[in-house]
Amino acid sequence: MTASEKPIIQVFDAYKAAVFAKDVEAFIALYDQDVCVFDLWGKWSYEGINAWRGMVAGWFGSLGTERVVVTFQDVQTFMGDIITVAHASITYQSISAEGQALRAMQNRLTWALGRKNGTWKIVHEHTSAPVDLETTKAILKR
Amino acid sequence: MTASEKPIIQVFDAYKAAVFAKDVEAFIALYDQDVCVFDLWGKWSYEGINAWRGMVAGWFGSLGTERVVVTFQDVQTFMGDIITVAHASITYQSISAEGQALRAMQNRLTWALGRKNGTWKIVHEHTSAPVDLETTKAILKR
Repeated sequence: MTASEKPIIQVFDAYKAAVFAKDVEAFIALYDQDVCVFDLWGKWSYEGINAWRGMVAGWFGSLGTERVVVTFQDVQTFMGDIITVAHASITYQSISAEGQALRAMQNRLTWALGRKNGTWKIVHEHTSAPVDLETTKAILKR
Repeated sequence: MTASEKPIIQVFDAYKAAVFAKDVEAFIALYDQDVCVFDLWGKWSYEGINAWRGMVAGWFGSLGTERVVVTFQDVQTFMGDIITVAHASITYQSISAEGQALRAMQNRLTWALGRKNGTWKIVHEHTSAPVDLETTKAILKR
């Protein structure tokens, strides 16, 4: 990590913290108003922060007493002046209220971050899993 | 399109032309040596130009007398100094040797392009389709 990458690493850390806390507003604060998200599940794209907030509120609300621990692997970052790209594998590990490991799932993640007024926000997110050619089912690493 | 975006539009046009011509080397020339691709089909990631060339040669080789017409929709571009991001929907329309439309498939596409020695190359590509939560099957627009 170089010094210039520090604000990008902070986005990764803030993402983990917001998911663990199930804090919709802290999570949404990481994204630009005009964000476009290509999410793994169900929908072609989410356009704008309000559509994305709806997905996030539904996700966090569905967790009950469970929490989700996020980890990133194989992170690669391309820093630019006003646009930065990062890609990684992201693991979502559900844990029970007692701290017991439940389900886990891995996605491929691409983030484009834009710098406005000195702050980096996610302007585009793309998460997915590859698809088996024969069955058209997602190949989910667990 | 602004004048500064012209080299990025040229990548889109060159991609279309290389796919239509089934020209592996022209296609591969659009990518950086160290490219990382998250492709829709079969494999978590392709690391480096040689792994990616193998996929492309297999794809073009499988087409027989068919050709593939690529079109891009909903293109959004974020220009930076040395990193640029573009996302879009991409349609692959197969046509017979006689020009008759056969299968078509749409993917979600994200490109990160890096500028080296004045030339923009794709340093990261992410294509996918969203996945149905119940069946875990890809939701493919056709």
